[in-house]
Amino acid sequence: MELAWKVAEGSEVRLADYDPDYTAKNTSHSEAKEELDKLGAELDGLQELMWAAHHHSLLLILQGMDTSGKDGTIRHVFSHVNPQGCAVQAFKVPTEEEASHDFLWRAHKVTPGRGALTIFNRSYYEDVLVVRVHNLVPEEVWTKRYKEIKHFEKLLVDNKTIVLKFFLHISKDEQEQRLLAREKDKDKAWKVAVGDWKERAYWDEYQKAYEVALSKCSTDKAPWYIVPANHKWYRNLAIAHTLVHVLRGYKDEWQADLEKRGRQALAELRQMRKEAHK
Amino acid sequence: MELAWKVAEGSEVRLADYDPDYTAKNTSHSEAKEELDKLGAELDGLQELMWAAHHHSLLLILQGMDTSGKDGTIRHVFSHVNPQGCAVQAFKVPTEEEASHDFLWRAHKVTPGRGALTIFNRSYYEDVLVVRVHNLVPEEVWTKRYKEIKHFEKLLVDNKTIVLKFFLHISKDEQEQRLLAREKDKDKAWKVAVGDWKERAYWDEYQKAYEVALSKCSTDKAPWYIVPANHKWYRNLAIAHTLVHVLRGYKDEWQADLEKRGRQALAELRQMRKEAHK
Repeated sequence: MELAWKVAEGSEVRLADYDPDYTAKNTSHSEAKEELDKLGAELDGLQELMWAAHHHSLLLILQGMDTSGKDGTIRHVFSHVNPQGCAVQAFKVPTEEEASHDFLWRAHKVTPGRGALTIFNRSYYEDVLVVRVHNLVPEEVWTKRYKEIKHFEKLLVDNKTIVLKFFLHISKDEQEQRLLAREKDKDKAWKVAVGDWKERAYWDEYQKAYEVALSKCSTDKAPWYIVPANHKWYRNLAIAHTLVHVLRGYKDEWQADLEKRGRQALAELRQMRKEAHK
Repeated sequence: MELAWKVAEGSEVRLADYDPDYTAKNTSHSEAKEELDKLGAELDGLQELMWAAHHHSLLLILQGMDTSGKDGTIRHVFSHVNPQGCAVQAFKVPTEEEASHDFLWRAHKVTPGRGALTIFNRSYYEDVLVVRVHNLVPEEVWTKRYKEIKHFEKLLVDNKTIVLKFFLHISKDEQEQRLLAREKDKDKAWKVAVGDWKERAYWDEYQKAYEVALSKCSTDKAPWYIVPANHKWYRNLAIAHTLVHVLRGYKDEWQADLEKRGRQALAELRQMRKEAHK
């Protein structure tokens, strides 16, 4: 059972076809909590194994409209994971230095090394989203970026990086509720940003920009998943489930890698001892 | 009750005076597990608050002989913490570029920004430890480093960084047991390193180098703690306890910072709405 919708390579996404309120048929809220804890523990074990195997790395991209739950996903899905070997990179408005390079430069620097997991909270996809919506660069520049992104992700995949991309899909009404809720809670009011309301005025343009990005940049090896995200508990469950499902496929290979590394290390140790006895 | 020993500024540490087997009187193993879970949850809340307050940052340095449990501490003490706002930096043998700069250069680049927690797994202290033991630079160079470290940490503290340093104190026998255990476990053998056995031959020189570093570089504002670390469960408990104890002292201030940020954000929003209605 797929809890998030994988975008098939070459397909044309229409977000209106995907229900942000969706929660799989037989899942209740309380069952989901239990399930998430189980998946969290399994994810922790898989990350530990990936780290020890030192063969693949994992890049996880989270995108979505403001308030769609990128921060909450990180907090709830990855709270059991060992912080050693797990980095989170948030992409904000580029600094002057970043802006003076190509749009992939700042992202490339912080991609995960062998064994590591890196979560991108926003990413270079902003360069075909906010940049496209507000025409921050000429159209002839941003239109080239879809292909540049595909080539970049291909490079990462060829170098044993598992690339998974999640679009947190919420409705326009749900966003309004979440923005208003922040204003009413003194512990959350610091998250209130004038910019969020201003960007909300471009909702349709953003949805369109996402449709194009998801359609053009979902590939078999670096797929986009559309995650129904109006219900936070379901969003967390869907992402954890998808992730664990994908990583399970590597488990045997990683166990073999780890044991091979162990045998090599022991051989070196024996060699040292032999020489010490000469 | 202090579970780890704070090194008073200006004192002369003799590690032989500290029992690596120590576990506080009334703590049993099973009580400790429960206590660690409680402290972990509190730590999670405090980090969340620090992140939202956006005022202080936290630098946590872990040092200790090979196998002393730096990785294990990160895994067990910080496994509940939100990975967003928590980074782990491991310091290995310097790259050519790193070595072409002063010894603090590579560390300074990765110190935590406002609101963030960064854990250093090893640190610039290696430049007065391994470097001193093996004379990797002339004595006149490394002798200056104690003062340079103090000045560097003062800079960080002046800029609202909370600096806490933990020395994981194990016995020479315990190290041998742990090294041998790795050889016998096929899932852990990848951690076996010829270098660990080679460095073990310099045990006494390392202990001496640690004594000097702890004595010269423990200050009121950036203290060293000696953590009895022969028992892993006690080591985790002692570090979590110390950390939570220190951070609790900031709780009210952070709550006030967070609410102030909230009021500012709401004021900006009101201003925007007023202008929109003109």
